[in-house]
Formats: sequence, structure tokens, C-alpha cells
Amino acid sequence: MSELGVALLGYGFMGSAHSRALRALRVIEERPAALPRLVSICGRNRERGERARRQYGWDRAVRDWRRQVTDDRVAVFDNAGPNSLHLEPTLAAIRNRKHVLCEKPLGRNAAEARRLWTEAKRAGVTHMCGFNLRFLPAIRLARELLEAGDLGEPTHFRARFLASSALREDQKRTWRFERAAAGSGATGDLGSHLVDLARYLVGEPVVVSAVSKTFVKARDGKPVDVDDAFAALVEFAGGALGTLEASRVAGRRSNACTFEVDGTRGSLSFDVERLNELALITERKQVRRLEVTDTCHPFMELWWPAPGHAIGWGDSFIHELRHFLAAAATDGFVTPHGADFEDGYRAALVCDAILEAAAANGRVEVTAAL
Amino acid sequence: MSELGVALLGYGFMGSAHSRALRALRVIEERPAALPRLVSICGRNRERGERARRQYGWDRAVRDWRRQVTDDRVAVFDNAGPNSLHLEPTLAAIRNRKHVLCEKPLGRNAAEARRLWTEAKRAGVTHMCGFNLRFLPAIRLARELLEAGDLGEPTHFRARFLASSALREDQKRTWRFERAAAGSGATGDLGSHLVDLARYLVGEPVVVSAVSKTFVKARDGKPVDVDDAFAALVEFAGGALGTLEASRVAGRRSNACTFEVDGTRGSLSFDVERLNELALITERKQVRRLEVTDTCHPFMELWWPAPGHAIGWGDSFIHELRHFLAAAATDGFVTPHGADFEDGYRAALVCDAILEAAAANGRVEVTAAL
Amino acid sequence: MSELGVALLGYGFMGSAHSRALRALRVIEERPAALPRLVSICGRNRERGERARRQYGWDRAVRDWRRQVTDDRVAVFDNAGPNSLHLEPTLAAIRNRKHVLCEKPLGRNAAEARRLWTEAKRAGVTHMCGFNLRFLPAIRLARELLEAGDLGEPTHFRARFLASSALREDQKRTWRFERAAAGSGATGDLGSHLVDLARYLVGEPVVVSAVSKTFVKARDGKPVDVDDAFAALVEFAGGALGTLEASRVAGRRSNACTFEVDGTRGSLSFDVERLNELALITERKQVRRLEVTDTCHPFMELWWPAPGHAIGWGDSFIHELRHFLAAAATDGFVTPHGADFEDGYRAALVCDAILEAAAANGRVEVTAAL
Amino acid sequence: MSELGVALLGYGFMGSAHSRALRALRVIEERPAALPRLVSICGRNRERGERARRQYGWDRAVRDWRRQVTDDRVAVFDNAGPNSLHLEPTLAAIRNRKHVLCEKPLGRNAAEARRLWTEAKRAGVTHMCGFNLRFLPAIRLARELLEAGDLGEPTHFRARFLASSALREDQKRTWRFERAAAGSGATGDLGSHLVDLARYLVGEPVVVSAVSKTFVKARDGKPVDVDDAFAALVEFAGGALGTLEASRVAGRRSNACTFEVDGTRGSLSFDVERLNELALITERKQVRRLEVTDTCHPFMELWWPAPGHAIGWGDSFIHELRHFLAAAATDGFVTPHGADFEDGYRAALVCDAILEAAAANGRVEVTAAL
Repeated sequence: MSELGVALLGYGFMGSAHSRALRALRVIEERPAALPRLVSICGRNRERGERARRQYGWDRAVRDWRRQVTDDRVAVFDNAGPNSLHLEPTLAAIRNRKHVLCEKPLGRNAAEARRLWTEAKRAGVTHMCGFNLRFLPAIRLARELLEAGDLGEPTHFRARFLASSALREDQKRTWRFERAAAGSGATGDLGSHLVDLARYLVGEPVVVSAVSKTFVKARDGKPVDVDDAFAALVEFAGGALGTLEASRVAGRRSNACTFEVDGTRGSLSFDVERLNELALITERKQVRRLEVTDTCHPFMELWWPAPGHAIGWGDSFIHELRHFLAAAATDGFVTPHGADFEDGYRAALVCDAILEAAAANGRVEVTAAL
Repeated sequence: MSELGVALLGYGFMGSAHSRALRALRVIEERPAALPRLVSICGRNRERGERARRQYGWDRAVRDWRRQVTDDRVAVFDNAGPNSLHLEPTLAAIRNRKHVLCEKPLGRNAAEARRLWTEAKRAGVTHMCGFNLRFLPAIRLARELLEAGDLGEPTHFRARFLASSALREDQKRTWRFERAAAGSGATGDLGSHLVDLARYLVGEPVVVSAVSKTFVKARDGKPVDVDDAFAALVEFAGGALGTLEASRVAGRRSNACTFEVDGTRGSLSFDVERLNELALITERKQVRRLEVTDTCHPFMELWWPAPGHAIGWGDSFIHELRHFLAAAATDGFVTPHGADFEDGYRAALVCDAILEAAAANGRVEVTAAL
Repeated sequence: MSELGVALLGYGFMGSAHSRALRALRVIEERPAALPRLVSICGRNRERGERARRQYGWDRAVRDWRRQVTDDRVAVFDNAGPNSLHLEPTLAAIRNRKHVLCEKPLGRNAAEARRLWTEAKRAGVTHMCGFNLRFLPAIRLARELLEAGDLGEPTHFRARFLASSALREDQKRTWRFERAAAGSGATGDLGSHLVDLARYLVGEPVVVSAVSKTFVKARDGKPVDVDDAFAALVEFAGGALGTLEASRVAGRRSNACTFEVDGTRGSLSFDVERLNELALITERKQVRRLEVTDTCHPFMELWWPAPGHAIGWGDSFIHELRHFLAAAATDGFVTPHGADFEDGYRAALVCDAILEAAAANGRVEVTAAL
Repeated sequence: MSELGVALLGYGFMGSAHSRALRALRVIEERPAALPRLVSICGRNRERGERARRQYGWDRAVRDWRRQVTDDRVAVFDNAGPNSLHLEPTLAAIRNRKHVLCEKPLGRNAAEARRLWTEAKRAGVTHMCGFNLRFLPAIRLARELLEAGDLGEPTHFRARFLASSALREDQKRTWRFERAAAGSGATGDLGSHLVDLARYLVGEPVVVSAVSKTFVKARDGKPVDVDDAFAALVEFAGGALGTLEASRVAGRRSNACTFEVDGTRGSLSFDVERLNELALITERKQVRRLEVTDTCHPFMELWWPAPGHAIGWGDSFIHELRHFLAAAATDGFVTPHGADFEDGYRAALVCDAILEAAAANGRVEVTAAL
């Protein structure tokens, strides 16, 4: 069993989720392939950093990520910072030959994402983009059922991710409402998850059309220059048609991420708010609701000896970080079930195509610069 | 109370639904505004026509609709025939000053629909297009809630109608797979319902983008020249974004029509397979499932004295035909809750725009020729 | 095809449900085994009777059921009157050799029910007790699955029927709150349905324990002397254990009738508020929701050519009356799928045992006097 | 902040659940009232004990609980052993003035439970019985809503816990099938949860009637002398009626624990297989599904900053152990939201009354020996 020193950038929502998952890895299985040593956590605010250090058990709190990427005790750089801090620190970590895990979206745009992928590939480090939904048992099972052909050939994919953060009056104009910092709005933040699911489950999008809109045009006296919502049509390489939709202006929704796949022999659907379940239709008028909690289901060998005991959303990060550390400690590859930087880049390409199509009022081909 | 002679064209699925509803009108309420007299039913096959006559209690079965539109006993011409028989018989009925109810889609294209609307308006007859879903209590309630502003300003509308008829191997190449007869495939058949719901609930679509596809390209040795599926983006006059999707190649689905509306203050959703229910979200993480069966709910004063007693899909036709006959017997207007021929025409305009956008790989404005 | 003259006693909720169903029989199928002629409807109030006559199309309205049971035009006496009018009019009808359909509960107690059964058997007329839930497709399917052994041997049956009529302040002390008129409260009104379902699906109850209670002890200044609620334990002849529960004091419920059967190989459950569905569990953590709307499902050959089109609660009466008239016109037997007067009597025996057990604080054997 | 040395008895299902929870306590909040030090884990098998020690991070593994209860480093004795090891080790721990947490059922019968409660009270140590369901957010919320009177006065409580362990052919005759070791079967194992929920939500049961049954009478060539299933009627001190039911012979169920409360103004229901949700009915035909994941919901301040992120079943143990350690470190009392040994004893009294009523074919009063 290897022990890998980890440095984490960010103590916000994602920093908390990663920290808890890293701590849980020590107890989730008897003989892990690799375990993390929590070397340092980084954030600008000294007090918040210290509190995070204490709560999550990091050895030290630092205020400059440069101290992390050059730290010899660090084998893994885990970037849970804001979008504007994805590129430079991760590149620096790669150049110092750290294995890198970076939250989604990989960059503020496809160009940033491509640089990260290219450099990570060249450096030969293990790289992963934090599309944690892949590590929910029901979604892994959906992938397995599709691969096994249980639904026939996919004909349709539809996904939506609805929130209402832009409708709350007390919502400040954080970096998420600023293009320079975030890259885009609902597209990169919520839509990138949908694009990754589309790619993971159905395959490569090759053409997109889209509309997008900024419903709340100013906030805190300053303009909002990112999209509050988009809707896109997607044509897949394999022939399926898709619709993707994400919004920050959807009523009182907050984490309403759902998808459906239809194929020539059946359909499946998933709702992140009931994440222990997967619905299948393979016979007329019979919806089978699978509760994905048996020890035979993906990841569930890590949990309880009897089925029917739900796991939580945060547990996806345990599965994700375990997967990443195991890869880093062995052959280095997180695919096909983890998203690597290529996946992060390809998701960004589709997101950019959505933004471009929305701006250009036209259909845009997704073309990778490889 | 008026009694209006009715002639029905068609003894298929819709002919049966209309016949049963017309018969039910005599018992659904104590003092109806108008009641039908079942003058004649028309269909090509003599034996099937005679069987329908006997089962549903029509006075006579005829084989030529021309005998119906010139029959003095007939005040109402109810067209439940195939799409290719919507234009000519309905026009003839209008010219003979019959009130006209025509199944959806009103024509095989917007041009046909426009002719029907123009002529009906000029003749001053009562006209209605058979968008029966408007006559489900939950959908009427959805409209009322939206009008009352309970959900704030609409930001999103999404709807899908999924079937699998084109995937069944024993499915013959009926007229529904032939452009000359049907006008279009999934777009006109299933999509027109979604377009009408979009218009009824959210308002006018002004721009559409779309993809469509014929997945099963031949049947019975002959090519299929209509779409098996489409997906469309819709921009509404009021600023909302929408997605519409219909398919005949969706796994094992058969009547999977659902929609959602998100607004600035709440969301609602509906599923035709659970048609007695409407779901509302107006507080964070609280989904209210309204069972729309109380006497206070739309149409339910016609049914049972206690709530909790579901009605059926076929009952939408009772509500629809009652609405139509009452209009014909009084001031002649079916709007706003019924769809008149203008609504049929405007739905056809959007469907044509979807087909055009799909063919042209571009965004198409919905422009009415008024 | 036979035509049978029908006389109906009662123009209330059940009178309306039966009238509508009788009228629908003419259009529900092409070649019915028998059709009703609506000879007369009976009720005390002249004006209400006349209104019912006109709305539902009865030939005449009468105020004395004695005129019905001696009417030569009448072959079938359909008793939808209050409980206190079940015994005498139905007995008189039997003695006049009318076929008899009587709403549930068959009598105010088992003694009344037994007299009705004995007399009907002796007279050789067709007899049926109005347990209409048996004529919902999902419940018939449940019975078929159990008979076929799909769930193994039944181990548990649980059912509940929850309403809140006794909690509404404006609820008058109708006959339903008076023992002399109703026989019992929640037990006979709601519980009898559950007992019939138990017998139809799992078999004969042989021992019961029970508690019951009158929560609202007076109404309109007069005492309520029937039960508002009961809960009972049931031991079945086949070895299964059961719980039955009915209430008029359950929050804001109104028609909340559900049941579950567990067997050694699987489970099923049903909810009358989603009556087009049946849920099955025959594999671990897989709930199959069957939408019982395909033409292959019970009764659905009478409805629509494509699945997914819900029927309503009132349609159970169409199926029920069709079944009864067909039996009356042919061999005379409504069992096993219809409940005959023996079933009505046996349900009453169990209801009486529940009331007795509740009063006696003990376990009571269900013993038929045959 | 206090640090309390903990000794854990048991490395099975519950031992694993407790161990993981204890480890999670270090990261769940910034300033915990108390934190555990994992002193020792105890189990008979040396190898399994060593594996558990390593996986969960206990300082040492021991094979005799006597070494734990006399260990000065130990402040808390956490008993997650089989039922037959609840009494003696916990008593010994109490006598050594350890704070004690004991898994449910507290004893094999009420007499054992009473001894534990009496001794713990006399010793003045903090005592808690492991009814972990109380620590699910939805159940705590249910209690709060009931206390606030949102549902009016309770009229009904019904709960069931269905499993199928006794139906699996490969299921060995473990101690759970043996009265001497387990005390009872489904009653103590599953039913005790239901009894505790009944008491937590509605109040004290005062009279019970019951049936119980051993469906599979022998296993591994030896008789099974505990109940596979029971059903009970319960009368509450406050006047509500209840039904409780638990089974090990229910089809393919495995963790199907649900309950409903009806009151004079509304109803609520819960399903442990969808544990992040609570359903409420406070208006006619309106079911509100509350997703209990907002920071305002019980325990959720420990989790994520945005709602819609489900927690898991295992997280109930984190909340439970946090509650217990905080009590032990402060005033010593776990009630009203935690179950103390009095609650464990009172639950056992009701379970014993159920077994007695089932054996005696009669109604049994629940009488505490205080």
C-alpha cells in the first residue's frame, strides 16, 4: 500500500468535500491500494485556512499554492479552487511532476483545458477532472447497462441541471457571475456536468445548436456577463439526438440534475436528488426502479453488508478520490470510468461550442484540436 | 338547451374517443348548454363503419364525407380522420356553414392550417382544433396558476413526448410514415401537442432551432420520408427558453408526454401517465403533488362528490366536446381554453419552423402570415 | 344479445356512479352479452329523482321501491341506497325473482347479509355485492399474479383506507354516523372494502383481533354511536398474517385506500389514488411499476388501442355492471371475479368479528353460519 | 473540547457502522463538543479483530471485553455486540463508571433492559440505546412538526419493517434465530425500531394485541424458536391507535422500514429507503414531499452549504455518536432526542408485551416496573 502526500487548493464547498473524502479513505476499505497523507491546504484567508486545517486534519495551512507545488512531501495536487485558479497552479504542479486532480470545469474555456491536458500528458503524471457524478453507483451502473447493450442503440439523451441561485435577491455577484473569473455561467458550472455525462454514457457530441441568456443582467451594481441559462441540441457521433439544459433561474430548484437515455430496446433515467436509484424501462409500461444499494452494485462493496442502506452525495468524492489515488499509485490511468484531462478538455470543447452556437445563432461543429 | 346534429369523419382511435365522449355528454351534467344528436359516422370500409355505427349509436354510417357536409341535419362536422383528410372535408363543411372540430394537427402543414382558419373565420362558424390535453384538469390548473402569477415570470419550458411505434418490427408503413399523407412524422403527430401546450402555458414561440432524424429509413420495402424524432430549442416572445422533443424511437415508451415550466418564483410539472396529478415547487426542496380531483378543480364539478377519485385520459374528450358544443350553441368562441383554428394554425407554423430549421441547419423565425 | 330492464334504488353518489356506468355500457363494446334498459330510478325526494331521471336517462322516477320490485319490465334490481335500505328492498326483489346487485356493505351486519345470501341462493337469481375495486385492472391483475404463484405463498397482507370526513366541522350527522341506520362506521363503510380485498387476494380470515374508537363523540348535538376508526389483526386460513385499518379521522386524507401483499417470493402493492399502476417486487431492490393500461391487461380490451392511456375510478363500475349483466344473461354466476352475496356475507362476518373483538378486548374466530 | 477514550465491542455490521462514524467525527464540524480517542476494539476472532483495528484505526484489538471495561484510558464503552453480550459487558462497564452506548435491543427482554437502566441511572453515567433512526434528519423533523402541533392530535400511527432474511435458502441459523441468544426474532430486531419510533413520535403505548409466527420452523437441522414476523395493535396513552408489523419473510424486501402518522390536522410519512425525504399532507389532496437537505434541517448544518445533496443511512451514526459524546462531555443527558436506557427499557417492555399478547391470544397492558 502506497501513501501519497496530498496538497489541496481551496477550503470552500469543494475543498470541504475533498477533505472529508480524503479523511474517509482510511476507513472505507481494509486494504486500500493507496492512502493520502494530508500535507497542506491552501487558501487566501489565514483564519479560514487555519480553521479548515484544524477541522479536516491537514498538517499545515498555507496561503500560496506555490509552496504546495514545490513541496517534496506532495505527490498529488488537488485543485478545488475557483475556475480562475485552475490553470496556473495546476500547470505548475504538473511541471513539478505532481499527479493532478482538478475540479470541473477543467479550465475557463477549451484552450485552458487543452493546455492542461497537453502538459499533463507530456509530463506523464496521473490526471483527473472532478466529474464526481461518474462515481455515483447508479451512474456507473447506467454506463455498464449501456455498454452491455441492454438498451440497444442509444437514440436520445436528455439532461437538465436546474438551480435558482441567480434568483435569490441576497445572492452577491461572486466570481461565478463574472466571465473573466468563471469563463462562463450556467454552461461551465452546471452544463459541464451534463456534457460529461453525455460523453460518458452515449459518446461524442459532434454538432451543437444552442440558445443562452442572462436573465438578471446586473448584480451589486455591476453587469453580469455570463449566461444564467442555456439550452442546447446535440448530435452524437453514434447518431443519437440530445438536449442539454442548465439554469440558475429555475424557480426554487437547487440541485435538480436529471438525465434520461432512450435506446432502441429500452430507456433509463436518473435524478441526483434520489441518487440511490436508477429507473429502467425495458418492457412496455414497466418502470423498474433499481435501488442501487446491494453489494453487487458499483462501489457498494465498500459499504454495508445488506442492501437498502442509502449512501449520500458526498460519498461520490470518496469513490472518486480512491479511484484517483489508486491510479496514481499503480498504472496512472483513471479512464474509462474516471474523467481524465482529455475528458475535461472534450467537455470544455462542447461547452465552448454551446456558447459559440448561442452567440452565433447557428449550428457549430465540435472540433477537437488534437 | 340546444341539440346539435353531429357528423363524425373517422372510426379509428380518435373516432372511437370522440364517439364515446359524445355519448357520455348526455349523462355528464344535469343541464348541459348543448347536446349532440349523432347523425352520421363516415369511413371507407362499409363493415367497420356499420360496426362503429352500431357500437356508438350513430343514426347512420356513410362512406363519403360529402354526404355529411351537405346534410341539413348536421350542424357540427367533427373531423377525426387521417391528416390527409383534414383539409378538403373540413373546408367543405365550413362552406356549408357547419361548425367544425378538427383533430390535430390541423393540416399537414401551416399552409393547409391557415386556409382552414381563414375560411372558418370568414364563414363565422365555430372552429376548434382537437388539442385534447388542454381539457385535462391538471393542465387547465397549470394554466390558471401561471396566469395568476404563482410561478412568477416563466423562464423555461420543456416538454417531451416519447413513443416507440417505429421500433416495433410488426409496425406496418401506415400513412403516418408517409409525408404526402401525414405532412410530417413525430413533429406533427406528437410534437404538435407539445407546441400547443407551450403556447397555452407560456406564450408564442418566436425563434426555433431543431434537429430531426429518420432512424428507420425504410419499412415494408418502401422508404420512410418523415421524421422519427426531433428536438427543438424555442425562444418565447416573453423571454423564456424552451426545449421540445418528440420521438417514435424511444425504447419501450408509448405515451410518455411530460412537461415542466420554471418561472422566477416556482416550477410545475406534469406527466400524462399520471394525469390526475400536478407537481408544484414554490418553496425550496418542497415538491407539492396536487391530486387534481377535488370538486374545486377544473372540470371536476362534472364528476364525483368526494376527492381522490381519478378520471381517465378519455374523459378529456368529454370535456373537450362539451366545451365545443357549448360554444357552438352560444357565442361561438372556444378560446382561450379551447384551441381554435388560429391555435391550430399557429401550432403548425411552429412545427413547420422546426422542420425547416432541422433541414436548414439554422435558426428559423416563426412568422405568421396573417 | 339480451336486454335486461334495470331498476335502480338511490340517486346519490352510488346512484350516479351506477347510472353513468349503465349508460356507458352501450358504447363500451361492439357485441355486449347483455345491455341494460333503464326502467326506473327510485328516491324519496321528488325533485331530485326527476333531475336524476332526466340527467341519466331513466324512463321514469319513482318514490317507492315497491313499485320497482313488482314491475314486470324489471329484470334487475340495483340497490345503491343507504345501508338501512339494503335488506328489505333487496329481499323483496329476490322474492319477485329479480336479479340483484346490492352496494356494499351487503347488510348492516352479518345476519342481514346472510338472509340476503340465503334468499338469493334459494331463489336462483343472479346476485352480486358491489365491491367495485375488484373491477380495477390492477387489482384483477394482482389476483392473477397471486393465483399464478408469482409471489409464492402469501405471508402478509396489509391494507388501509383513510378518510377524514369525521374531522370536517361542517360534516353533518348523516345516517353514516348512526348505528341503527349504518350498522357500523368506518368498519362497514371503508373496512368492508379491505376485507373483501383480503379475501379476494389472500383467502379467508379465520381469527381477528381489533381495536376501534369513536374520536368525535357527538355531532349536531347527538351522540355518534359508530366507530370512527378501527385497526385489526387478521390470521388467514392459509397461514398469512394481516393488518387492516380504516379511519374517518385521518388528517386531510379522503380516499386513501392502499394494500400490500408479501409472499415467499415477492411482494405487490396498490394505491387507489394511482389506480392505473401496480407495483411488484420480485427481485431484491427492484420495484417494478406496471402501468396496467395495455390491451393485454384486464378489462383494457374495452378501451384504447395503445397503452399509456389511464382509465378512471368510475370506470370500475362499467366493468362491474357489464360483468353482472353478462352473468344475469347467461349462467348466472358472478364468481370468482365478481363478489356474490356469499362474498358480501363473508365480508360482513369478518366486519362483525372486528367489531366484536374490539368490544370484547379479545381475539375472535370468524365462524360462518352456513 | 473534550477527548473521550472509547472502547468498542463488536466488529460486525454495527461495529463497522460505529467505527466509521467515530472516525468521521473528527471532520464533521470545526469545534466539536467532544471527540473520541479510539482505544480498543473487541471481538472473539483474532484475525478479524486485527483487520478491523487496522481498517478503522483503533489503537488495539482485544479479545476479552473485560480488558476494555477496566481500562483507565476508556471513558466510553460502546456495545455493538450481539444481543447476548448486551447485559453483562454493559453492566460491567457501568460498574466501572464508563459512559455506555448500547445497540438496540437494549436487552434480550425487558428484565435485562431494566437492569441496565437501573444500574446506569444509579451510577450516574451517560447512557444511550442505539436507536439510530432518531438521528435521520427527516425523523427529527417529523418529531418537531408533531411537537409543534402541525398535524393536530395524533389519531393513528402505523409502521412496518420488512425483510426477507429468513427466506434466503443460504441463510444459516445464526444467533438471530435462537431465543437464548437473541431474546426474540423479528420483534426485538426490527420491531424494537418501530416501537421506539412510535414512542418518539406519538407517545407511550399502553395496551397491545399481537399475532406472531415462525414461518420457517427449522434451519440447519435445528429448530427456530423465535418469531419470523409479528403484527400488533397498539393503543397509545394519548388516544391514538397504532399498527406495528415486522417480518423476515417478506418476499424480496430487505430494509423496508416505513411509518405514517395521521393527526386531526394532517399526516406525515417516511420511508427509510428514501431517507432524505419526508412527506406531509396538511391540505386535501396535496402531498408535500420535503427534501430534508437544507441547512435549516436537523443535522444538516454539519453537511453542505447548498440543499439537494443527499446524505446516507450510515450518517445517522455520525449524528448519534456526536450526540452521545457531547452529552457525556457535558451534562450527561441524551434525551429527549437521543434514546437513553429508559427508552431502551420502555421499548423492550412493549416488545415483551407484543410477544406475550401473541402467545396468550389476548390484549396485554404495558406496565412498567419503575
